[in-house]
Amino acid sequence: MAEILMGIGKAGLKESGNPDLLVVALPYPCVASFVFTDNYFKAGSVIYSERIAREREKISAFVVNSGNANCGTGEEGVKHAEMMAEQVSKLLDIPKEEVLVFSTGIIGKPLPIDKVLKAIEEACQNLQPLDLKKASETISTTDRFPKYDFATFKNLETFGFAKGAGMIHPSMATMLAFTFTNADLDYIALRRMHERITEKTFNSITVDGCESTNDAFGIIALGEVEADLDTVEFELQKVSENLAKQIVADGEGATKIIKANVRSVITEIKAKEIAKAIATSLLVKTAVFGRDPNWGRIAAAAGSTEFPIDPFKMEIYVGGYLLYDGKPHDENLEKAKKHLEEDKEIDITVELNEGDYEWTYYSSDIGYDYIKLNAEYTT
Amino acid sequence: MAEILMGIGKAGLKESGNPDLLVVALPYPCVASFVFTDNYFKAGSVIYSERIAREREKISAFVVNSGNANCGTGEEGVKHAEMMAEQVSKLLDIPKEEVLVFSTGIIGKPLPIDKVLKAIEEACQNLQPLDLKKASETISTTDRFPKYDFATFKNLETFGFAKGAGMIHPSMATMLAFTFTNADLDYIALRRMHERITEKTFNSITVDGCESTNDAFGIIALGEVEADLDTVEFELQKVSENLAKQIVADGEGATKIIKANVRSVITEIKAKEIAKAIATSLLVKTAVFGRDPNWGRIAAAAGSTEFPIDPFKMEIYVGGYLLYDGKPHDENLEKAKKHLEEDKEIDITVELNEGDYEWTYYSSDIGYDYIKLNAEYTT
Repeated sequence: MAEILMGIGKAGLKESGNPDLLVVALPYPCVASFVFTDNYFKAGSVIYSERIAREREKISAFVVNSGNANCGTGEEGVKHAEMMAEQVSKLLDIPKEEVLVFSTGIIGKPLPIDKVLKAIEEACQNLQPLDLKKASETISTTDRFPKYDFATFKNLETFGFAKGAGMIHPSMATMLAFTFTNADLDYIALRRMHERITEKTFNSITVDGCESTNDAFGIIALGEVEADLDTVEFELQKVSENLAKQIVADGEGATKIIKANVRSVITEIKAKEIAKAIATSLLVKTAVFGRDPNWGRIAAAAGSTEFPIDPFKMEIYVGGYLLYDGKPHDENLEKAKKHLEEDKEIDITVELNEGDYEWTYYSSDIGYDYIKLNAEYTT
Repeated sequence: MAEILMGIGKAGLKESGNPDLLVVALPYPCVASFVFTDNYFKAGSVIYSERIAREREKISAFVVNSGNANCGTGEEGVKHAEMMAEQVSKLLDIPKEEVLVFSTGIIGKPLPIDKVLKAIEEACQNLQPLDLKKASETISTTDRFPKYDFATFKNLETFGFAKGAGMIHPSMATMLAFTFTNADLDYIALRRMHERITEKTFNSITVDGCESTNDAFGIIALGEVEADLDTVEFELQKVSENLAKQIVADGEGATKIIKANVRSVITEIKAKEIAKAIATSLLVKTAVFGRDPNWGRIAAAAGSTEFPIDPFKMEIYVGGYLLYDGKPHDENLEKAKKHLEEDKEIDITVELNEGDYEWTYYSSDIGYDYIKLNAEYTT
């Protein structure tokens, strides 16, 4: 496989003094698809990169700074993002329009642009083969562990790295994820895949229900291997889902992963909205933290969306144990409690018994450490 | 004023052994308007009362049990609610269709109906003048204090009582509120007022973003005084808003009330959705708990709805101090922090500078005690 290179630099944006600048240089212009946060309070880097990505099907490099979100920084923030792209373009001798820029970190502080440009220089002068773990560590902020994954299937290679832990810890923002495939894809095929995969993975996780100003998720196709589209999509989804689950597992203060399944539903959008309501419910999340098989909270969350449910036809399972099917099944409470106590991934399943669609949403429980992380830090 | 009577009974539904059954007997059939939870996982009492309220413009009495939500209890739960209405009807000699039934408490436990019917008998045999404080105490579950209010304007009397603290504490559910006026109103006039008042009060408060299975809010007009409709509505809204704010102040683990104002917006619905996003944001709530004037979280919440905002035109104030207007105003952070430390009601104002509409949403901060109350209790 043609080599993807990376360079690492230090702009002094992290209190720890750890590396905070990553340049990823592709071996040639590659087909790439990116999605960005829906938040209207967008970071300067997001405003800049979204504009570039909309008009280009290929990119040659991207640069990420962590420790400063370049958000709430006005027109100057957009200008700074452009200067970062320019610097990479100049040093790697590629068109400026083939460089995307990402930022993650504290909101509302101007980027010390001179230091950032210096760090880009440092990174570009010391290129080395892409190391997924190191790349994740460089872009991390409050993450407790690096997030990356690698999968092979025949001659197909799929891999990626990410950062993110909660949405915005002490103003430290954002989920960023980059997945790569060595498959040959045209832009339209990649874009369609990307949209489906995003819905099933990064748009189906929640830590605290708060949407960041800097989120981005991209897929880059290196174009070296001819492969069946379904297989490529399957592999890309698997790797992306693994990255998404790693982010949930690193949710601020989390002790458990919650897997909320909603099944036999009349439409997919209804299944998704109900799964999201359960995964997002503070009462469900605190119940899981308390190891309490409290199906009443699951029922209340399931009933709270705009989509009607029939309480008499609905079934609720925790860890596979039936707790409600129009009436309570208290005889299974002890077994469900054991699942909550002993397993790392908590399975909550709701059956509506009305159709053929289903959806799974991932989240984490919420405990004292979430409050500690988010309240005790002061700006 | 014609006397409203109440009776109190004990069905043994509360662990404390405190009174848990309230009957309110009106002096004659009164025009009444009720709204119920939108949750599709409705309690038996809600299913029953909603059916009755839809077909009647007047009621003569209502009964509330607390300690058991009669929810998730199947068809039997609806039957039990009907039996409660029947019992009141028989003992007070009024039509069954003029009696509404409300429940609040733990989800998923069958109502011990024999004990409840006995308690209704006890209540109906000991009627006394309505005492707002006692009425609130009787219907309370996890409330830390009773909630009631009384206002007079000329010969107009407006008063009410409520319960609610958080949405569903350890499966103990719900907000219930009853507001009365001695004004003479026809049903259509009352209904229109009621809908507007509900939006501005009980539909503009949030504690944990979780919607209960048992919520209800009613307004009852005694029809004794002729008064200007605008004045009646003003008084009713004032009393109802006071009840709503008392519920927020009693939010589980709350130390502060958050008043989220969104101003100069192009439409009312947009102002409301953005105010709601700010008031609901876990990151804003934990920042207030931590006394941190973290405007970046307010900005991120404001940008997270489906309605576009212009980050460069927006202004953010905390305690009246400008913290952002396209760029940060760090010089005011200390003053905003002092407001967070010293005042009980925290004022967050966002100006969009695009139109003439505004909305205010109330919520509470969130701290360790919320987690404690909701996680450490196990069923």
